[in-house]
Amino acid sequence: MIFERIKSEGLAHLSYFIGSGNEAVVIDPRRDCEVYTDIARREGMRIKHILETHRNEDYVIGSKELQNLTGADIYHGPGLDFKYGNTLEDGQEIVFGSLKITALHTPGHTDESMSYALIDLDAGDEVIMVFTGDALFIGDVGRTDLYGPEEASRLAGNLYDSIFKKILSLGDEVILHPAHGAGSVCGGAISEREHSTLGLERHQNPALQKTDKNDFIRYKTQEKMEFPPYFKMMEKYNLEGPPLLHDLPVPELLSPGEFSEIMKDSAVVLDTRMPHSFGGAHIKDSFSIWLEGIPSFAGWVLPYDKKILLVTEEQEQLETAVRYLVRLGYDNIAGFLNGGIGAWYIDAQPVDGFNLISVHDLKDRLEKGETMFILDVRSDEEWEEGHIQDATHIYVGHLEENLDKIPGDCRIIVYCGTGRRSNIAASILKKHGFNRIYNVLGSMTAWKSAGYEVVE
Amino acid sequence: MIFERIKSEGLAHLSYFIGSGNEAVVIDPRRDCEVYTDIARREGMRIKHILETHRNEDYVIGSKELQNLTGADIYHGPGLDFKYGNTLEDGQEIVFGSLKITALHTPGHTDESMSYALIDLDAGDEVIMVFTGDALFIGDVGRTDLYGPEEASRLAGNLYDSIFKKILSLGDEVILHPAHGAGSVCGGAISEREHSTLGLERHQNPALQKTDKNDFIRYKTQEKMEFPPYFKMMEKYNLEGPPLLHDLPVPELLSPGEFSEIMKDSAVVLDTRMPHSFGGAHIKDSFSIWLEGIPSFAGWVLPYDKKILLVTEEQEQLETAVRYLVRLGYDNIAGFLNGGIGAWYIDAQPVDGFNLISVHDLKDRLEKGETMFILDVRSDEEWEEGHIQDATHIYVGHLEENLDKIPGDCRIIVYCGTGRRSNIAASILKKHGFNRIYNVLGSMTAWKSAGYEVVE
Amino acid sequence: MIFERIKSEGLAHLSYFIGSGNEAVVIDPRRDCEVYTDIARREGMRIKHILETHRNEDYVIGSKELQNLTGADIYHGPGLDFKYGNTLEDGQEIVFGSLKITALHTPGHTDESMSYALIDLDAGDEVIMVFTGDALFIGDVGRTDLYGPEEASRLAGNLYDSIFKKILSLGDEVILHPAHGAGSVCGGAISEREHSTLGLERHQNPALQKTDKNDFIRYKTQEKMEFPPYFKMMEKYNLEGPPLLHDLPVPELLSPGEFSEIMKDSAVVLDTRMPHSFGGAHIKDSFSIWLEGIPSFAGWVLPYDKKILLVTEEQEQLETAVRYLVRLGYDNIAGFLNGGIGAWYIDAQPVDGFNLISVHDLKDRLEKGETMFILDVRSDEEWEEGHIQDATHIYVGHLEENLDKIPGDCRIIVYCGTGRRSNIAASILKKHGFNRIYNVLGSMTAWKSAGYEVVE
Amino acid sequence: MIFERIKSEGLAHLSYFIGSGNEAVVIDPRRDCEVYTDIARREGMRIKHILETHRNEDYVIGSKELQNLTGADIYHGPGLDFKYGNTLEDGQEIVFGSLKITALHTPGHTDESMSYALIDLDAGDEVIMVFTGDALFIGDVGRTDLYGPEEASRLAGNLYDSIFKKILSLGDEVILHPAHGAGSVCGGAISEREHSTLGLERHQNPALQKTDKNDFIRYKTQEKMEFPPYFKMMEKYNLEGPPLLHDLPVPELLSPGEFSEIMKDSAVVLDTRMPHSFGGAHIKDSFSIWLEGIPSFAGWVLPYDKKILLVTEEQEQLETAVRYLVRLGYDNIAGFLNGGIGAWYIDAQPVDGFNLISVHDLKDRLEKGETMFILDVRSDEEWEEGHIQDATHIYVGHLEENLDKIPGDCRIIVYCGTGRRSNIAASILKKHGFNRIYNVLGSMTAWKSAGYEVVE
Repeated sequence: MIFERIKSEGLAHLSYFIGSGNEAVVIDPRRDCEVYTDIARREGMRIKHILETHRNEDYVIGSKELQNLTGADIYHGPGLDFKYGNTLEDGQEIVFGSLKITALHTPGHTDESMSYALIDLDAGDEVIMVFTGDALFIGDVGRTDLYGPEEASRLAGNLYDSIFKKILSLGDEVILHPAHGAGSVCGGAISEREHSTLGLERHQNPALQKTDKNDFIRYKTQEKMEFPPYFKMMEKYNLEGPPLLHDLPVPELLSPGEFSEIMKDSAVVLDTRMPHSFGGAHIKDSFSIWLEGIPSFAGWVLPYDKKILLVTEEQEQLETAVRYLVRLGYDNIAGFLNGGIGAWYIDAQPVDGFNLISVHDLKDRLEKGETMFILDVRSDEEWEEGHIQDATHIYVGHLEENLDKIPGDCRIIVYCGTGRRSNIAASILKKHGFNRIYNVLGSMTAWKSAGYEVVE
Repeated sequence: MIFERIKSEGLAHLSYFIGSGNEAVVIDPRRDCEVYTDIARREGMRIKHILETHRNEDYVIGSKELQNLTGADIYHGPGLDFKYGNTLEDGQEIVFGSLKITALHTPGHTDESMSYALIDLDAGDEVIMVFTGDALFIGDVGRTDLYGPEEASRLAGNLYDSIFKKILSLGDEVILHPAHGAGSVCGGAISEREHSTLGLERHQNPALQKTDKNDFIRYKTQEKMEFPPYFKMMEKYNLEGPPLLHDLPVPELLSPGEFSEIMKDSAVVLDTRMPHSFGGAHIKDSFSIWLEGIPSFAGWVLPYDKKILLVTEEQEQLETAVRYLVRLGYDNIAGFLNGGIGAWYIDAQPVDGFNLISVHDLKDRLEKGETMFILDVRSDEEWEEGHIQDATHIYVGHLEENLDKIPGDCRIIVYCGTGRRSNIAASILKKHGFNRIYNVLGSMTAWKSAGYEVVE
Repeated sequence: MIFERIKSEGLAHLSYFIGSGNEAVVIDPRRDCEVYTDIARREGMRIKHILETHRNEDYVIGSKELQNLTGADIYHGPGLDFKYGNTLEDGQEIVFGSLKITALHTPGHTDESMSYALIDLDAGDEVIMVFTGDALFIGDVGRTDLYGPEEASRLAGNLYDSIFKKILSLGDEVILHPAHGAGSVCGGAISEREHSTLGLERHQNPALQKTDKNDFIRYKTQEKMEFPPYFKMMEKYNLEGPPLLHDLPVPELLSPGEFSEIMKDSAVVLDTRMPHSFGGAHIKDSFSIWLEGIPSFAGWVLPYDKKILLVTEEQEQLETAVRYLVRLGYDNIAGFLNGGIGAWYIDAQPVDGFNLISVHDLKDRLEKGETMFILDVRSDEEWEEGHIQDATHIYVGHLEENLDKIPGDCRIIVYCGTGRRSNIAASILKKHGFNRIYNVLGSMTAWKSAGYEVVE
Repeated sequence: MIFERIKSEGLAHLSYFIGSGNEAVVIDPRRDCEVYTDIARREGMRIKHILETHRNEDYVIGSKELQNLTGADIYHGPGLDFKYGNTLEDGQEIVFGSLKITALHTPGHTDESMSYALIDLDAGDEVIMVFTGDALFIGDVGRTDLYGPEEASRLAGNLYDSIFKKILSLGDEVILHPAHGAGSVCGGAISEREHSTLGLERHQNPALQKTDKNDFIRYKTQEKMEFPPYFKMMEKYNLEGPPLLHDLPVPELLSPGEFSEIMKDSAVVLDTRMPHSFGGAHIKDSFSIWLEGIPSFAGWVLPYDKKILLVTEEQEQLETAVRYLVRLGYDNIAGFLNGGIGAWYIDAQPVDGFNLISVHDLKDRLEKGETMFILDVRSDEEWEEGHIQDATHIYVGHLEENLDKIPGDCRIIVYCGTGRRSNIAASILKKHGFNRIYNVLGSMTAWKSAGYEVVE
């Protein structure tokens, strides 16, 4: 038996390659899917089946892409009108090599959510692993708010039944393989640890301590999570079948002059550098999202109907940026600034910048009583755990719709957890004409390291 | 938490890197240990502790090597007079980052054998993983015959207690991480599957079905396993601390003339090509062990007090051959034949060969009643499951001490499971002056594929 | 100025990437042309022009492929009705960055042959390099026999004029860059050395010592070179524009059973292993061409209208084999034997072999007066420089049309220079039912190393 | 014949590997010399001889290092008391494979400077290549000012004789291989082009147009070049034999706290990021030298007697930084900031920054008449070709000894060619307590791109 977990950084998405004999199954493939065919080739196997745990809302599913390369069958759960693939029923079995997968219908996160129980026929008929998609994570359970507040109770109840009646009853000894790890937008409290079993979750997962169904529903319906606007696009893509990618796009290298021309054609500039570098100098009106932040934040700010132009610190980072974007369905990447920001300013193109301020400097200014508008762009949860006195809270994802709350006439100090999300926020404010912006380097983490006061 | 399992192919040896915060622990490092420092560097961690599960008899332990690079502390189990490192007591704890390891004394395979239970302090105080060394494998348990037959019962009893009283009682939900996978000389029935839990083993592991202690002891003492001669050297090395390797040796590239000169100085030639290539043409008196067979078979035939000369199919395979040899303590690699066997025969150096015979051809000859000595060099277990009629059985590892049983005056047909071990045997026979040797391509596997008869 | 020479091994084909500022030119691109776009990307340049020195008969030109990726213009010499690209006139200039190329019409090898003189405008107006295609090599000049014997004198005369009047008059100091290095089928005496100037060639190139035009023509028309049958296909492809490849084909991994099925569909098996490995065991009726011999010999034996199946020693060699085949236009690669010859015989599929004989053994047998047919498959030139007594000479490329000259009733000893071409010959003989075949390991090189007699 | 030119970026140093048969020669090896043994291994060759063209003042010669790995002999020119290796005489010959090198004593750059003429014995007795060290470059000739002004005339005269009488007389057709390319501190006008011949230089090299010896001497003695202080150390090392490096140092990864502790121990911090990133945020008192600038500028500012601590943009750049430093003899690298500047400010460590100003903004301020001190840190030559009005000129290498010329009480605007050297200057000024510093992004190149006025 060959087993590989493929982790897509940033998305914190987990997909799985499971092979036996010369046949293999892939669960929840990502769109840039040569990773699976590479394993198959190395192991001398054929990918026969592609299993989806659910439609997914946070990334473009790669099933059709992988099918195009391998001819494998695609399987979904029941109840949604997918425009491709086959529908599984609860209890349906798939045998490959000396392994067997039993499909379990486990609704709750979505109505068509499936889990897959794996049995090693060579060893016995016990389930050895279960792939739970977004139903059960390590340290958390799936969101139940995707159909809106009016459906949340029903979904939470379904999820309770799916987990407590179907999944946990497989046995404490079963190894757990969810669709996401820590950092995903699909679960707020997923553990950094990547290995667990049903027994460990039964003991340790905070949500599974709500063993009473009503408690569980109450717990889930009180949960507040963000809903980035790109989810709608992902749902549409994954229901209808996304456009085929074939190869990863290789963006054109553009000179500053060419780049500037395409910008005029209402293209959007995405700059993937870190705050200290972006703050120093950047192209006017560019969005800042640091490289590893693209999977979580691009879907909040980038439109699907405009060309995207890229600026990275090093040319080597371009491929990663492109992978991250196509996983979210941003295929319209028009080009890349050859030579980076250095080439831009050497060409005397217009450069912008904003102030970077240390926590020590901020503390000084606060003590001196300087007039400043302090903006905290972290999540509701982080805000509630403590913030800087007199700060205003607007989550970075909602900033663009709340610009009327930002005063135009004074210094604006933006902070988040480490200074990266606040850099996104600063770039949004700049784009909208705010000028006296200061991003706090290290933000709340540095503020606390320095021992400065937080209020609740 | 960072968790990586490092698999050393051939040895089927498993070692583990576990990190949290900026501290890490390595369990049972191998000797070519840059793999651990590479992970540490990538993760920005320091290796603080090196834990050994037991002395090990099948490879050179890399603890001192890794300590030399990192300054980490080494820990062993109690009861053996190690010349380096520290001794742990049962129950002793090691905390690093937000993880805790509890040392468990689990004798049976050896007296000083330890297991290590890992607790994720962030998640709770339950054990999440256990590292069992050679006590408990997936699908098998450790050998108890290493101290000789007179000690086997005592060790089997100890192992019973260690597994049933200490390890299994940690809970069904605990993830199992042993020191070996399938193919190791340390366990005959280890599963090809690489993922399990204590609960799965409790249900599926054949040895663990012997829940009665006496049954278990009887089962273990009836087990027959081979004891390759190099084990003695490994035990000595691992007790006293092996010589430091620093870097992987880079063998000198030798011309055929230079190679030939060193051969005269009583060096041993190891040819790592596959049977079809070795059979076609090879250097007279060279040993054949296919590349991936080195970890299991070099220790049966290669001496520690002679220089080793290497012949490989491709120069790219040299590094793998060297890694495999140094893991067994063969550091005295004098050089490598530049250009391989082709360079040798182009230089008009003396070439040997032997006949390769298909199972179909063998079947024909048998039916015609040709006089042949048929030699089966597989293990006792394989032999007992069925063999070719009229064959004689001598395990490849014991061939050199049983040459008197081989007739000198007729065709010798050698076979094993697939033709690779029989190629080792053929090369040994050639070295000892036997000449009319035929290696059976595909051997028993092909014989059965062809539907020919096996007898028991 | 960026200058890179791209050498395609086997073909001994040289192509060139020359860039300045952000523009680049490629001369004589090969078909698997991502190598050029990789350089362009690394250097931040755009490929603007593709220059062909001539139609080429020994490989598929990659101009259309590269144009498809880059949009660059293609340029040919005058006088042939190319179905794509533009025609240059003698003296026409192309400027890119601070470089200038002047096109020189230099017929002789073919009528439309061009050379390209490069000038570095930053340094002066002197020519610094000249790209001579197949007109002038290091140590040799181009063939003039491609249009048949009746045209050879005319072409030789043209070549004389092109070299002596146009090329050499550029100046001794000009660096020479031809389209081929040693080993090409386009020139028999090309130097192993890869660096030269017009002055060095004027002094050292044997052909250029024929300074009298009539001497030169006589010298060239006496030259005997082989004309592999695939040249016709290459000429057709390169005139009309070969089919687009897009990506390098990735052959399907086939199990022995699947492989065997496709074989029945009149596919051709190409085995790329070395003689000692092929001789040991191979698939019946497979062609043997060692990996690095594919560019020179596949075109003699492989048909264009059948599927090709591949067997290699290591899976890693598959990509090289595929590159070599598509450069010759063999796009119809049906698959690859998963696990190589070992998987084949383990599956009890029918295996063939033939005898490998050392030069010492051959010498013994000759001295004992054994009846043998000795076949020398080297080139005419090699044969004339000396051979084994009583051997018969048939060039490997002409063996299939001369099978009537091979006796069916005795041992056939085949040799070449080192035993690799004779292995091709041995595989051809096997395919045609000859059975008592011996390939001489190391062949003439080993024979001479051993000090055995050669006759002329 | 195998020929490889090894280019060490930054230093613009060229070394050469030349092999024939199974023997090879290396000319002017660099200190991190595994590049040569890798080629030797790939080609199946032994490095037998190491030839130095001269002592070298701009980098640590790798001869002893390479000798330590290979056992090769080292050869120098006559007249200097080297503490290792052998002394060659003019005309001495070295034969390896079918190649011959003739040593030519060509003083002028230094007294012991040698050139090496290569002959391909297979092709004839003409010289095919010449390795001229720092005597003759492509587009320039060697410096003659290293022994001080009083010796410059004598050296220039010697150089004239060496080039015109010895080197050029080898013939126009000889390929030229110098020890440096464009960007070296050893020649100001070396061409960007990397391929030339003696004939091309005779026609195109500006210095070689001074065919009258007195003109040539006058031309050379008027030349003004910088003499970085580290030259003294290199001369000492290369005369006595530098310490052996063995492996490239792998700097310790340090947490901000650990880094900060070592800083207190009077270590020097070198930050290799680009100006826009360094300007945004950096560790107080760190030196800024962008990665590719280390070879040219580290020797001006870094001391040899203090520990060096590194900050890079990406961890992947660490190896390059270390290579560059050890080539200059900076072996005392104490560690590397794990996580880069981001980790530093997240830990609330003290951060510094300075202003980055665009040329447009500078132009505005100048037009408004703002009081500013404008500092041009380019070379004398660049300054003389035109500068910004009212600027003061101090070469970046001499800034630390001219701090008294910088006013402490006003804005300081620093510029160079593109903003990278001015960033070094800005970091030096910061270290010395100047505070209102502005680095001009894109500097003179951007200024000219924008069409703003320069004065002479």
